[in-house]
Amino acid sequence: MRNVDEDTITQIVLARHAEAKKPRLKQIMTSVVQHLHAFARDVHLSEHEWFEGIQFLTEVGHITDDKRQEFILLSDTLGLSMLVTALNNHKPPGCTESTVLGPFFVEDAPQYANGDDLGNGAKGEACFVTGKVIGLDGEAVPNARIDVWQADSDGFYDVQYGERAETHGRGTLRSLSDGSFHFRSVTAESYPIPYDGPVGRMLTALGRHPWRPAHLHFMIDAPGYERLITHVFRSGDEYLDSDAVFGVRSSLIANWLRHESGTAPDGTVHDSPFSTLDFTFVLNRLEGTASRGR
Amino acid sequence: MRNVDEDTITQIVLARHAEAKKPRLKQIMTSVVQHLHAFARDVHLSEHEWFEGIQFLTEVGHITDDKRQEFILLSDTLGLSMLVTALNNHKPPGCTESTVLGPFFVEDAPQYANGDDLGNGAKGEACFVTGKVIGLDGEAVPNARIDVWQADSDGFYDVQYGERAETHGRGTLRSLSDGSFHFRSVTAESYPIPYDGPVGRMLTALGRHPWRPAHLHFMIDAPGYERLITHVFRSGDEYLDSDAVFGVRSSLIANWLRHESGTAPDGTVHDSPFSTLDFTFVLNRLEGTASRGR
Repeated sequence: MRNVDEDTITQIVLARHAEAKKPRLKQIMTSVVQHLHAFARDVHLSEHEWFEGIQFLTEVGHITDDKRQEFILLSDTLGLSMLVTALNNHKPPGCTESTVLGPFFVEDAPQYANGDDLGNGAKGEACFVTGKVIGLDGEAVPNARIDVWQADSDGFYDVQYGERAETHGRGTLRSLSDGSFHFRSVTAESYPIPYDGPVGRMLTALGRHPWRPAHLHFMIDAPGYERLITHVFRSGDEYLDSDAVFGVRSSLIANWLRHESGTAPDGTVHDSPFSTLDFTFVLNRLEGTASRGR
Repeated sequence: MRNVDEDTITQIVLARHAEAKKPRLKQIMTSVVQHLHAFARDVHLSEHEWFEGIQFLTEVGHITDDKRQEFILLSDTLGLSMLVTALNNHKPPGCTESTVLGPFFVEDAPQYANGDDLGNGAKGEACFVTGKVIGLDGEAVPNARIDVWQADSDGFYDVQYGERAETHGRGTLRSLSDGSFHFRSVTAESYPIPYDGPVGRMLTALGRHPWRPAHLHFMIDAPGYERLITHVFRSGDEYLDSDAVFGVRSSLIANWLRHESGTAPDGTVHDSPFSTLDFTFVLNRLEGTASRGR
């Protein structure tokens, strides 16, 4: 293993992994080493560029904390997150498509009942969301756990307001016996991903904007069905064709109907504008789970 | 740009970089995206594995500070650092070969005169180093700036002892008019790279040990010559064939002569063991610099 050179080093590194106990880890690290080395060879990476890369990753690491995940932003903006989502979510036609999780999901969000206001003081126009969770055969999926999270009208998620911020625009609820659910929140707007860090500087250097089209995040879990992680996008948004994280799918674009005033779905009367959204989520059956209703 | 899928996403991400101003950055990021995506496809990376990767990089970032550079350790242990060194240091035969910088170099190390003790209290047996800096035609290179750094006999560099540690086993000196230099320090021993962090856990999972064979680090700068970054390794070391960072080159292995007692090269008399080392460094001419002496 002396005198490794640019031609032999890849095989020498891989040979050093002969004793790896987990075959899957060995397979993954083999591919990591091969592609990392092929990249350096392809571009003939200079020592200065290598060090710039080290410094960039260091900055990504240092800005990352329990409220901000710059490595996920990096993965998202390089299309890796959407690729992994696509690779792992081949579904039968008719199922709601998956898209990226994003960096703003939080475990154990507050629980709400149907009809509650998940906005919980978030800035923005009122939005009344109605929806339904069904299976591929059209069967209702009752008692599904529905996680919802979204940015406010300033483009910020609650976790971006710092340690003392109250949860807003985020919560979990359950579908009713007919699979339906409904809640109030605020109208989602397009917003830039956090661009005051190294990923933002990367986007600028690459001539890219940081904007995402307006969307609501959903994660839906129900026994016997695959977990669904997706967004519902707002039709007409100017960034639908240039989402900074490549997450848009046509089937996930819905009409947010805007009302200048009037009676909302929950019976409340408004003299200021509000919007309504209705969307049906079709879950895929878990592999090995018997078909229902046939 | 809607409905990107696992087949089209790579080209869609690359198309988004059409406006990048610097061609070199565009070239590098094109290769990064292609290899990152090819890796995910090759191994069919699962969402769970993707998240484990995000967590691993986050830990690498969080343990990194101004004294510890875990991203360089990661690059070193995956052979990337040695590959980049090899790609960028094609030299004429006869020149001293380059090897990795490693994570423990420090700018502005204390200045010493020839004959001084760079050990400065470091643990270990005394070691007396004599050397010479010459060019490819054998010409002496006077007044070269020589940076030396090394671990003590416990295997630690000074910077690993924390904020209040005094500099030891580290310094800069200048070659004399005949290109020679000499200093005292302590005898280098083999040591493990820091393995109490994520890179150490990675090595364990891959069935690899973290040891490096004993070595001294040198960085030598002189006007008209290429900077030389290299090590001198100690012959007979048990890890010469399995250096954790793949840095060994046969031409850089030297005899450390051990003396049970006696008069050292600096005239001091020792009744405890010490070692001596002599090594000649041959610098490459800077491109575009006229040959000397012909």
